[in-house]
Amino acid sequence: MRFTPRGTRFFDLLADAAKNLVAATALLRELVAADPAEREPLAKRLHEVEHQGDELTHTIMVELNSSFVTPFDREDIQALAAKIDDVLDFMDTAADLAVLYRIGTFPPGTDVLMRVLCRAAELTASSMPGLAKVGDLEPFWIEINELENEADRVYRRILAHLFEPGGDALEVLKTKEVVEQFELAADAFEHLADVVQTIAVKES
Amino acid sequence: MRFTPRGTRFFDLLADAAKNLVAATALLRELVAADPAEREPLAKRLHEVEHQGDELTHTIMVELNSSFVTPFDREDIQALAAKIDDVLDFMDTAADLAVLYRIGTFPPGTDVLMRVLCRAAELTASSMPGLAKVGDLEPFWIEINELENEADRVYRRILAHLFEPGGDALEVLKTKEVVEQFELAADAFEHLADVVQTIAVKES
Amino acid sequence: MRFTPRGTRFFDLLADAAKNLVAATALLRELVAADPAEREPLAKRLHEVEHQGDELTHTIMVELNSSFVTPFDREDIQALAAKIDDVLDFMDTAADLAVLYRIGTFPPGTDVLMRVLCRAAELTASSMPGLAKVGDLEPFWIEINELENEADRVYRRILAHLFEPGGDALEVLKTKEVVEQFELAADAFEHLADVVQTIAVKES
Repeated sequence: MRFTPRGTRFFDLLADAAKNLVAATALLRELVAADPAEREPLAKRLHEVEHQGDELTHTIMVELNSSFVTPFDREDIQALAAKIDDVLDFMDTAADLAVLYRIGTFPPGTDVLMRVLCRAAELTASSMPGLAKVGDLEPFWIEINELENEADRVYRRILAHLFEPGGDALEVLKTKEVVEQFELAADAFEHLADVVQTIAVKES
Repeated sequence: MRFTPRGTRFFDLLADAAKNLVAATALLRELVAADPAEREPLAKRLHEVEHQGDELTHTIMVELNSSFVTPFDREDIQALAAKIDDVLDFMDTAADLAVLYRIGTFPPGTDVLMRVLCRAAELTASSMPGLAKVGDLEPFWIEINELENEADRVYRRILAHLFEPGGDALEVLKTKEVVEQFELAADAFEHLADVVQTIAVKES
Repeated sequence: MRFTPRGTRFFDLLADAAKNLVAATALLRELVAADPAEREPLAKRLHEVEHQGDELTHTIMVELNSSFVTPFDREDIQALAAKIDDVLDFMDTAADLAVLYRIGTFPPGTDVLMRVLCRAAELTASSMPGLAKVGDLEPFWIEINELENEADRVYRRILAHLFEPGGDALEVLKTKEVVEQFELAADAFEHLADVVQTIAVKES
């Protein structure tokens, strides 16, 4: 049993996990813009980043079980690690499906979704050091919510465009399946921000 | 720091949020029955109701952060506000997509889903005052669960009907996307009722 | 008010609920392999098993409300019962939709999903007695996660196969809808394992 003062060790690990998110979103953005024939190696690199994320989560869990922390904080740290995992999972799934379904050029608006995800990852990474000291995370939480709303709006427009009469239904189904993962990733960033908010309230 | 006796202020705010749900379901029901050409203003009004809901949630969160309540109750109140938000979000999405995808007449059975959602909203609104005093919320919880089961059954029949051979696959995809939001809203009412149940148990 | 020593009564009830999961997955596997014309009675039997699961959950909730347990444990037990319910719901939905949509032969790979679900149910059932005493549940948690990954991989391959050009889009939509429930059931097993992990940590 070790005593970690105010859980600083966990905040370091969470900061690493958030930096990992930044790397993953950058790779996803590159993959979406890339020539379809060149997507597979990018999907593999993204999968490795996702795997590093899994290992960070595992380390956080092992540390949690061997450290003295209050049960309540423990839950929040577990939740935060789980939410970071969720974002990575959706992006990894999107990359895998894009290759597997041999998606061609992504529909207009997808680049906006990529910008939103990259910004959300950067914001999340820069919010992590704020968790350990008392920081004002309100602007972080507000911007993540605005980004999620933007992702939502763009996602619906992409679908309306895809669903226009005359399209090939199977192609539409496949593309929708991949673009949906982008939207789910934006949602997952919002849920992550909700946990950050919860922790910030308690630390204040 | 203010001390709120047994969190009564929160129950008032939650009651307002639940009344907002009643207004939203009534608008959605009107929109679904309306001529497609007349849906846009109804979707806008529903979006305003959803926005009022967001502001109520924000007020609840600000109050939570400046009041003395036990962390445990705090969590439940946060969860309840989040679930009310979920219901509103699904209904707002449904209305937006109905307009965006230019859905024609909704498939048979959709009126049953609307009746279920309106009843669930009324039940939820009338359960809120029961939270502050010790009330028997078992009948509320049971009826919400029955309504969710009914929504589920009707939803599956609507899909089976939509999927019958000969339909236009893109039209089916669009309609499914909107009707799915109704079913998700019914689900979200059930999750809301679960939180109500949790709070009721602790208050008893 | 009754005092249950370390909540052993709840662990018995949860063990029963987990045994119910084993019965449900076996029925689902049989239904998927069966001749389409013979699926309806199997779906009915699965629905009865799901109903027994609902009653077990209800008993657990009633016991929780009349027993002295710490609020924290209470939450975990509630969460565990809810996750078991989730798995049952997805399998019941899958069986119902398979009959309702008159699915023919399931696509290749579905048998792998069935094997994964049966193994996950058996693992879960054998982990339940470990909750009451201090047991090492790490191998359980790891294998459930591996099974979920396998389900995910197989599910994506099934979709890629379904989406190949030339298929009938409405048939694809229907089949995807059912196979998706299998994947959601595998996911729900993973969430169940997460709660088991949480409880195991606290009991250790």
